[in-house]
Formats: sequence, structure tokens, C-alpha cells
Amino acid sequence: MQISKFMTPEIIFGNQSLRQVGESLRRLGATRVFIVSDPGVENAGWIERIIHYLGQQNLDYFLWTQITANPKDHEVHAGVAEYRARECNAILGVGGGSAVDAAKAIALLGTNDGSIVQYEGVDKIEHPLPPMVMVPTTAGSGSEVSQFSIIVDSERKVKMAIISKSLIPDIAIIDPQTLMTKDKQLTANTGMDVLTHAIESYISLAATPLTEVHSLQAMRLIANHLRPSVASCYNAEAKQAMAMASLQAGIAFSNAILGAVHAMSHQLGGFLDAPHGEVNAILLPYVLEYNYIAAPEKYRQIAECLGESTAGLSSHDASRLTLKAVKDLARDLDIPESLSAIGLQPEQIPLLSEHAILDVCMTTNPRDMSANDVAALFQQAL
Amino acid sequence: MQISKFMTPEIIFGNQSLRQVGESLRRLGATRVFIVSDPGVENAGWIERIIHYLGQQNLDYFLWTQITANPKDHEVHAGVAEYRARECNAILGVGGGSAVDAAKAIALLGTNDGSIVQYEGVDKIEHPLPPMVMVPTTAGSGSEVSQFSIIVDSERKVKMAIISKSLIPDIAIIDPQTLMTKDKQLTANTGMDVLTHAIESYISLAATPLTEVHSLQAMRLIANHLRPSVASCYNAEAKQAMAMASLQAGIAFSNAILGAVHAMSHQLGGFLDAPHGEVNAILLPYVLEYNYIAAPEKYRQIAECLGESTAGLSSHDASRLTLKAVKDLARDLDIPESLSAIGLQPEQIPLLSEHAILDVCMTTNPRDMSANDVAALFQQAL
Repeated sequence: MQISKFMTPEIIFGNQSLRQVGESLRRLGATRVFIVSDPGVENAGWIERIIHYLGQQNLDYFLWTQITANPKDHEVHAGVAEYRARECNAILGVGGGSAVDAAKAIALLGTNDGSIVQYEGVDKIEHPLPPMVMVPTTAGSGSEVSQFSIIVDSERKVKMAIISKSLIPDIAIIDPQTLMTKDKQLTANTGMDVLTHAIESYISLAATPLTEVHSLQAMRLIANHLRPSVASCYNAEAKQAMAMASLQAGIAFSNAILGAVHAMSHQLGGFLDAPHGEVNAILLPYVLEYNYIAAPEKYRQIAECLGESTAGLSSHDASRLTLKAVKDLARDLDIPESLSAIGLQPEQIPLLSEHAILDVCMTTNPRDMSANDVAALFQQAL
Repeated sequence: MQISKFMTPEIIFGNQSLRQVGESLRRLGATRVFIVSDPGVENAGWIERIIHYLGQQNLDYFLWTQITANPKDHEVHAGVAEYRARECNAILGVGGGSAVDAAKAIALLGTNDGSIVQYEGVDKIEHPLPPMVMVPTTAGSGSEVSQFSIIVDSERKVKMAIISKSLIPDIAIIDPQTLMTKDKQLTANTGMDVLTHAIESYISLAATPLTEVHSLQAMRLIANHLRPSVASCYNAEAKQAMAMASLQAGIAFSNAILGAVHAMSHQLGGFLDAPHGEVNAILLPYVLEYNYIAAPEKYRQIAECLGESTAGLSSHDASRLTLKAVKDLARDLDIPESLSAIGLQPEQIPLLSEHAILDVCMTTNPRDMSANDVAALFQQAL
């Protein structure tokens, strides 16, 4: 084993944990909080409650919701201008991966100069970031615990992965009750995104015993609770389990990185502005099929965690059950099977494939991939 | 589920990770490092290497090794006087639980006034601590990742548990190579301490899905690697696995707390200055027997992780295999079966039992215990 590193924020988990948002920011030294969120989260009523909790701690705030799905560089730049103009000294992200990633990028530029584009890649950040508290509301991205921020370079139309320990928030507050305001399609897509995090981090070349236990536990929780969570927005037990699955998968992938599904879906998100969870859900079975020969024993483990019975089966037959389990789940959740559903055109494939092999997530994929290999997978999934 | 919290330091794990000690302290802002260690660790040559790595980063240091096993309040007070006199601005603990716990207590008093005795209990610390890096050398205490510091109040002759998030070091550097200089008895005792951490954190009333995965993985590693680790100081694979087991058990118990074994052994450590690992190893089977009715299903899980085959067995029979597995392991490692081996006298039992039920670790033990219950267990183990 090489030297490995492992890091998480302070984590506060449980129903009603949202009440701790004010106290958490207060003890990080915040006085004026820049809230980054989106209109959907605001309409669901969560921001109003959060503002109430900030008020209880006499914290001032400015609310900023000018972000879109797949947050763009210019949105981040507009956000940091407001952050400075409003003289805030802490960042609170509330929402799905887009809001949380944008919040982290704004925090980055709050103390580091220039354009967000300069920080693409690993460890480019010089100065410590302002205090950050993140409140995820989708059980999907894991960004509230990760060292990633994914921002679209709108000129190149690519998703940039910005990776640094500095991007790990100080405190992540995960309140499963916030999941009850998601619709079923978003629940399915973000749930499949969690599964992708769990599987890609587990078979990643950078997986360690510390990350593997979280990847596997996330898979077990998904196998038992994602279907019921999509079936009903009021199933509190399922929401709690999926929030825990998302958290554990986030801890795993933040430290073990991801693989080809993400390297490929980042391109579609950047180029077509396609929803991240849905693209991952479509790509996952195809990439899993491709990666299979890299880690048959790990595939057997995955199959077991996903509820397949592998007793008495050969290694080959057992590990192939992973593909069956993932496809069964995707079908039960009405995930589309083709990328044409999100608007991919055949002539776009070569360029997207060239970009995908340069994505940092590709470096930990367990099976080597050329641009041609990526193109062949895009083609299969078309 | 109630609201739960989870926190770890930044973790650097692997052979040769010791080389990162200078750079780690440097990026925390250290210029003059107060090294807390003990003569055994120094004689094994580890301090010389560490000083070399500090020098590479132009870090000044002062080495202080005036601590004993079960570190005492007056040692901590002497240490902090030196820390101040030498004008250090960071703490590096190198050694077993005693050195690391003493280092954390010195850090505490480096920025907080008074006697260490004032800080006994939960969350009594007011001011942030100086930067702390910890290098464990025993694969035992888990203190390098925990929010605990255990210090003997030499007047009352009790071990005080000081618990606070502030005591979680900034960085834990775990280099399995340091385990090769431990003798076999210390390896056995500290290994059984790790098993105690894993089991007590797993059946703790404060266990969460985040801590349980680490508790269980620690048990699996112990089951496969503790015997070979005791058998040979040169078995690098076993050392690495036990270092990982200790780390995972440490993450688990720091966040889920412990139980009656620790509540009882703290008394023997304080009163008789008995070695912590050995006392835990002796007490574990007796307390496990007592706690069994609190968590039969968890005992079945433990039995499986310890390598017992529970297929086809009733819940009762499966869970009882935990006791067999732990006793088999203790016997294989020549752990004494009786507390008289460490000098406990029958007339001391009532007072120690009264103290044990006040220990903070008792609050998360899964089965209620009165002082009489504790006394009965001490008596059985005598």
C-alpha cells in the first residue's frame, strides 16, 4: 500500500440537525453569512427556517440564489462580487450539488484572487478559505464532505474539477427531513448518483481500507432503501437511510476519487448542461461492463452488497451479478437507457471523448481508457 | 436515530509516512515544535529520524520525554511549563497512548489556564489548542484520532477522561513501520486494547452507521492479523493491518465512545498504575459476558467478523460465539485471565467500583450497571 490520506469535515447528522446551523456558524467565527442556494430550495421553505436559526444566534446574512444546475464560472464570479460587496465573512451552502459546489467556489475566490478557471485541477489553492458550513438537500452529490468543486467553464463548455483539501467544508449538516421536498425523478437520479459514487470509489485505484468500508455500506443502504425512497416522499426511514448512503459515499469518493462514469458525465454536463445524476445513471451500467475485468473480486463484493446471492457461484458468475443488480435497479426507477434522451448527437462524441480522458477522475479508473475506448462507450450508450 | 456527530483529524497512513511529519507541522504554522515522547520510543531510534525530518523543514524543536505509562497530572504540568519556557508553538506527540494523551493535555494547557484536573469531563475547554500532530507507535490507543485524553489525577488516584472535539489532533501520521520495535507482550496487550475499542464502540449506545463500519472492519483485521503480528516483529503485512485496525477502532470509539471495560480499567490504571492494554485484555471477556443480553444481534455480527461461522445457528448460539472467539484469541496470545496478576486486592474492589460507575465511558455501556454489578465483575475477574 502507498501512503494514503483521509479527511472529512465535522459531520452533524440527523432529523432536526438543521437547527444547529446558526450555532455551527457562530462557533466558526461568522458574523455575516453569505447563503448560497437556489430558488427551488427557497420555495420549499428551507431558507426561511435557516434564516430563523441564524437570527437566534444574532447572525446577519445575505441570500444569493443566482445559480443554475451545473453551476457556471460567471455565476461564481457574480457570487463572489456580492460576497465582497456585502462584506460577509462566512459561507453557507444549502441545496444540491450545484448550490454546494458554487458555495465552495465562491469561498475559494473569497480569499484567493483571479478567475475560478485558474484553479482547475489538484491543489492550486494558496490561501485558507473563509468558514464554510454546508447543508445538502438532495442525498446525491456528497459535496458537503468532499474536496471537490465542479464548475462549468462556459467558454470551453467543460466541467472543471477543482480538487483541494481546502475545499472540504468545516461543518456538514445533514438533515434527512430536507429530502422530503424532492420529486421522484430527482430522488431517482440523485440516488443513482450516490450508487455511482459508492461503486466508482470502491473500484478506484486510490481506494483504501478507510474508504472501502464507507463505499460498501453506502451500497447496502441503497440496495435496501432507494426504491422505497423513490416510491414515497414521506418515507422517513428511507430518506434517513439515503441521506446516510449519500454521506458515506461522499466520504469515500472524496478520499478515493472516482472513475470513468464521472469523467464522461462531466463532459455531458459541461457541453449539454445535462443533469448530472441522470447522466451518471445512464452511463453506469455501460462503464461497469467495461471495467469488469479490472476488479472481478470487488465486483463480487458489490453484488453481495446490492443484495445478490453469490454463494456457490464462480468468481466470474458472482461478479457478473453486479451488472444485473445495477440494471435491475435502474429499470425499477425508470432511468432512461440511452444518452440520446438527454440530447447527445453522434458527431459530438469524438470531442467529448478527447476531453473525458483528460478529466482528473479518469486517473483512478481501474481499467485503462483511450479516447477511442470512451467513444465506443458513448456510442453504446447512445 | 438521534442527532449524531462525527469528526476525525486529517489522516496520513502508510509505510514511510513518517517522512511527512516536518511538512505537516510546517503547513500548520509551526516554527518551534514541542516533542512529547518517552525514552523507549527515543531508544528505538524514531525521534532521531523525526528530528531529521523537522530539520528538513527548518523547524526548531524541544524534546521532552519525562512521562510514564498512565501519564500523571504533575507530568503534564511539568510539560506545559517547559512548553512555555521553550516558547514552542506546536505539539508533536510520538509514542503509545501515554505519550499522545500527555501531548494533548499539554496542548490543552498551552492555551487554557489552570490545572489539568479542571478539565475532566466533557467539553470543558474554552480556547483553541495549538497545532497538534500525532505519531502513534503502538497500534493501540487510537488517541491520535480521538477526542479523548486520559490523565491520572495523582491525588485521587483516578484516571480522568477529558473529552472535547478540541482534543482531536490536526493531523495523525500513522506509519506501520514504527510497530516493528514493539515487543510481543506489548503487541498482544495493545492489540487486545484495539479489539476492546472495536467491540465497545460497536455495542455502545452512541454507535452510529458511520462508526459501526469502522468498528466491524477493525474486528476483521484483528481476527486475521493480530496473532501473526504477535508472532513476529518483522511481519510487515500484519503490522500494516494492525495499524489500520487501530486507526479504524480509534475513529469509531472517538465518535461512539466506549463502555464498561474502559470505565473499569481506568480505575485500575489510576489506582494500581496497571498497563491499560493488559487490564482491558483481562476484563474484556468478563464484561462481554455481562453485556451480552443488551445486544444479541450485534454479538452475532461480532462473531462473524472475528471469523466464527454462524450460518444455521440460532441467534442465541451465534451470538455466544463472540465470547468463544475473544477467549480463544486471548488464550492464544497468553493474556492473563485474572486481575490478581496485576495486583488487585479484594478489599480495593468496593471503592474502585464506586468510581467506575461515575466514569464517562459507563454512560454508553449497553447494559445498565450499578456499583454492585461492577464489583461482581471485578470479583469474577480476580
